[in-house]
Amino acid sequence: MRKFNFSAGPAALPEEVLLHLQYDLLDWQAQGVSILEMPHRAPAAINLLEETVQLFRGLLKIPDHFQILFMHGGARMQFAAIPMNLLGQNSNAVYLNTGYWSEAAAAEAKRYGDISVPPLKKGGGEVFRAGGIFNAAYVHYCDNETIDGIEFSSPPVVDNIPLVSDMSSNILSRPIDWGRFGLIYAGMQKNIGPAGLAVVVVREDLLDQAQAMTPSVLHYKTQVKAHSAYNTLPLFNIYAASLVFKWLQKQGGVEAIALINQRKAQKVYAVIDKHELYHNDVDLSCRSRMNITFSLPNKNLEEKFIKEARERGFINLEGHPSAGGIRLSVYNAISEPMVDRLVAFMEEFAKNTLS
Amino acid sequence: MRKFNFSAGPAALPEEVLLHLQYDLLDWQAQGVSILEMPHRAPAAINLLEETVQLFRGLLKIPDHFQILFMHGGARMQFAAIPMNLLGQNSNAVYLNTGYWSEAAAAEAKRYGDISVPPLKKGGGEVFRAGGIFNAAYVHYCDNETIDGIEFSSPPVVDNIPLVSDMSSNILSRPIDWGRFGLIYAGMQKNIGPAGLAVVVVREDLLDQAQAMTPSVLHYKTQVKAHSAYNTLPLFNIYAASLVFKWLQKQGGVEAIALINQRKAQKVYAVIDKHELYHNDVDLSCRSRMNITFSLPNKNLEEKFIKEARERGFINLEGHPSAGGIRLSVYNAISEPMVDRLVAFMEEFAKNTLS
Repeated sequence: MRKFNFSAGPAALPEEVLLHLQYDLLDWQAQGVSILEMPHRAPAAINLLEETVQLFRGLLKIPDHFQILFMHGGARMQFAAIPMNLLGQNSNAVYLNTGYWSEAAAAEAKRYGDISVPPLKKGGGEVFRAGGIFNAAYVHYCDNETIDGIEFSSPPVVDNIPLVSDMSSNILSRPIDWGRFGLIYAGMQKNIGPAGLAVVVVREDLLDQAQAMTPSVLHYKTQVKAHSAYNTLPLFNIYAASLVFKWLQKQGGVEAIALINQRKAQKVYAVIDKHELYHNDVDLSCRSRMNITFSLPNKNLEEKFIKEARERGFINLEGHPSAGGIRLSVYNAISEPMVDRLVAFMEEFAKNTLS
Repeated sequence: MRKFNFSAGPAALPEEVLLHLQYDLLDWQAQGVSILEMPHRAPAAINLLEETVQLFRGLLKIPDHFQILFMHGGARMQFAAIPMNLLGQNSNAVYLNTGYWSEAAAAEAKRYGDISVPPLKKGGGEVFRAGGIFNAAYVHYCDNETIDGIEFSSPPVVDNIPLVSDMSSNILSRPIDWGRFGLIYAGMQKNIGPAGLAVVVVREDLLDQAQAMTPSVLHYKTQVKAHSAYNTLPLFNIYAASLVFKWLQKQGGVEAIALINQRKAQKVYAVIDKHELYHNDVDLSCRSRMNITFSLPNKNLEEKFIKEARERGFINLEGHPSAGGIRLSVYNAISEPMVDRLVAFMEEFAKNTLS
């Protein structure tokens, strides 16, 4: 029996997408072979890839001067690929540190260039107008910190420097103001599809600075020329992503799901704020809509919460080991009725615990 | 309807494996979630990974002083990762050039160190005893050239230098003499499972020379410590590989399939050699058992051959665009009866064409 999966990633996929993948697993589009067996240079494969790129471009209204790449290895691989591709000789970049993942991105980037990590007030905002860091190749930040439950309500203000953003855990959850960005990237295993790939959206004018030691597979310009298929692209992942994109279109697109995501998060934060039992210490201005973290007064109560939730079919509610506590990941595929059921359980648990 | 898929890769999988993947796509091992949705740090995921490593170790009788890694990005990514990890400062490596893929590997390696590509008689063999290249960090060669249809019947002789071998298209097709090797690697989309990963088997004493700019995701020692899961490993691919490994066990293991592979190849080469219509120009000593290439007297006849084959359900017989002609890829999942049917068609086509 299917459970309610609140995992932070790999995360729940729409059931409709899974049924579709299951249905044609042995014979894809009357090709006589599984999508797992399709040669990646076959015309049907090339059409699928092109269709998937266009679906993604349409959903996020990505302007034509941005290239869309599907790349091996997830966001962690991009932590290296981004400085390799965007940092020329003797140039530097600024990394904002708002939590676990932005810190990991900065640590990896230091292998490839001069990286500065300025002191930062929690919450981001207008961090650079006063800072005077105006000659960086880019400013990197993490739009949503999956582990810490921290999200930028809008991108940081950095005049004239391209923003580079890790959107692994909130891509497709709301519209993107492309005028602000040089590059955005996301591991695909949260809001897009199965694990194994990252999507990279990069402004064309940034493609000419790659360092000589950039591996060909990670070299943006090489992959742009090859339509992401310089090496064997896993078509199954692309197909799954295309089905998720079509599902999202049917939900009304990114604008419509953004409203649903806002309501879902408000409902959970409302029950957290209502009961002394639940505690979230993230500043109100940067509470994540995607990963809602909270603690209970002690570890015993947290274990009891997780156990009783599991008995009702809610699973993968544990916080990241480095953070502890509870974490509810409510990506696009988690419907509002699912959140309503979970909120009802949280109400019930609070009532039973305090009485 | 399923067709007979002779693709060079991504390639045919055993139908039993596909049925298994299909059966539990919505609810994997009673976890209540798809394998596509499973968090990669869950106990069931860790068990799956460990089981898959042990199955692979058992099938190829890999000694304990070799580590087994599943890594993002396929063999092309390893073209960069291998010199990054194995070439220390001021060291050099030798690359044997026997065709398209070994040449591509050497070109990529040149970004990371001093690479020499000695002149080589076709077929390999005892190329180094006379060459005097005895201080290289490793000697790289491609065990089976997928595009050219060339295979080493046994590894080249290189006293006291670790061999590094690309076995993307013949891994698990025959036993490996581990005493000769420092590292072997293979993109997994031919004889193992879906595209997206490479398997790397590396001798432990070679793990301490990585260059400082090696991306963490590609850093062997980091991935050894993390049991291949330093970053999010695509569990679906691991699960599919585990099913292929169990299927191979049931066929009698690598030793048994090696005999079948030998017979399959002999049958196809026999029909090629019997008829003037078919021509294979690879030296008899290094004809590939996995990728059998041949040409017909002209392009019209080749197109007719491919068309009539397709009408009988045999697909993906086209040679690589850079080589032209016909290519039959007969990996483990292509059964002997399938080859018999194809050979019967080749006999029939030759008879009809010449009469």
